Amino acid sequence: MSPAEARALFRGGTVAPTAGWADGYTQANLVAVPRDWAYDLLVFCQRNPKPCPVLDVTDPGRTTTVLAPGADLRTDLPGYRVWRDGELVEETTDATPWWREDLVAFLIGCSFTFEAELAKAGIPLRHVEQGRNVPMYVTNRACRPAGRLHGPMVVSMRPVPENLVGQAAGISGRMPAVHGAPVHAGDPAELGIGDLAIPDFGDPVVAGPGDVPVFWACGVTPQAALMASRPPFAVTHAPGHMFVTDVRHTEYRID
Amino acid sequence: MSPAEARALFRGGTVAPTAGWADGYTQANLVAVPRDWAYDLLVFCQRNPKPCPVLDVTDPGRTTTVLAPGADLRTDLPGYRVWRDGELVEETTDATPWWREDLVAFLIGCSFTFEAELAKAGIPLRHVEQGRNVPMYVTNRACRPAGRLHGPMVVSMRPVPENLVGQAAGISGRMPAVHGAPVHAGDPAELGIGDLAIPDFGDPVVAGPGDVPVFWACGVTPQAALMASRPPFAVTHAPGHMFVTDVRHTEYRID
Repeated sequence: MSPAEARALFRGGTVAPTAGWADGYTQANLVAVPRDWAYDLLVFCQRNPKPCPVLDVTDPGRTTTVLAPGADLRTDLPGYRVWRDGELVEETTDATPWWREDLVAFLIGCSFTFEAELAKAGIPLRHVEQGRNVPMYVTNRACRPAGRLHGPMVVSMRPVPENLVGQAAGISGRMPAVHGAPVHAGDPAELGIGDLAIPDFGDPVVAGPGDVPVFWACGVTPQAALMASRPPFAVTHAPGHMFVTDVRHTEYRID
Repeated sequence: MSPAEARALFRGGTVAPTAGWADGYTQANLVAVPRDWAYDLLVFCQRNPKPCPVLDVTDPGRTTTVLAPGADLRTDLPGYRVWRDGELVEETTDATPWWREDLVAFLIGCSFTFEAELAKAGIPLRHVEQGRNVPMYVTNRACRPAGRLHGPMVVSMRPVPENLVGQAAGISGRMPAVHGAPVHAGDPAELGIGDLAIPDFGDPVVAGPGDVPVFWACGVTPQAALMASRPPFAVTHAPGHMFVTDVRHTEYRID
């Protein structure tokens, strides 16, 4: 399936986590904030490049991105969240009624992008095997604040067979624009995560025997910053329901 | 020599291009603009990551950076340029009298950072051998504009023996935060450069027999954008006269 075909399905109302969709193409998190919060968000992203690698920033009011010239950011994702004062007020498949002339959209790299490379190397993707959204957790690691924005780092977790953890780290590490190498592997308590079975976003996944939990910085981090910092308005993707771009993942691989 | 020792010399008035200084540490370009231009500049950098990889952005009025906690950005570089309405109005070794409460300082990665790795691989550095500043050229490649900011890409040039060009590209390519792989190798005319002997910034260097000119995106690009876009005020480093940080260059290497 091509990225354009995937986006057409989502525009038509299909709702699904996008892991495994349009393999070989870059996927992105969406955060759109009013122009008067965009500077703080852009500095926040610069100061926290592991969770918030920025792939594109639109001009205010624009609904398109250089990452997929034919796409409409208001409709082409499978799920959106609308935020007021840091509270989730609506989950929707069409953000058109909520879009505003002063919104600046940030497209932030997503770790689904390197999953094709992990799979090619024989690293199992438990959430894809189990037909679930990837599990995501709020950690005890504070992001470096910027202006009015602050909050904890969010991570995604993939159980990886112990003997393949190094290889998974190497493969993802060559793709810093989509979160790069893991931030942690092993004991979840080190990140302040109490129970892997109760993710803050997405679904729990069942680990295979001999799997180790491996944690990558996650582009849901800006949503945690919205909750902590309470800007008056924002539109984001729904966790795991990403924007599928036209950019091949190899564009973001350091060879 | 440590970065702190280098900065102390520059603070004391020593003026020199910084290639080869404090080997093994990251060097950075400086661009400080008023807060009301900082958003445009940060978006400009995001849209042009090859010439403008941002390593830090300060809060308005601050004169320090996380890249070197003990350093003063107003005094610790060997050379500064002061700009009004896109015109160079002063070259100085102490920017203190020019600093303003609304200035936001951008530290942008510098290709001097990967020169230690090039040298270790046996790649000669002609400008260092010849005791000259690296030559820099304005190209015919337009940057992607952002708000009021637009301008051409600037490149630095190093003559590299033909059989080592691939290795130089590979080594620098693993350090995208300090400009990464070259943007071009070979005929300067492809970048609109008429005569390598007449650089726009820095000094001409003499190529060795069998050397090929290799061009890297350069952090002087924001200065070309200042000249083209004419913001009311800015302070920058003098080309080649960089801020020597406390961050080891390996921090920015993708292994």
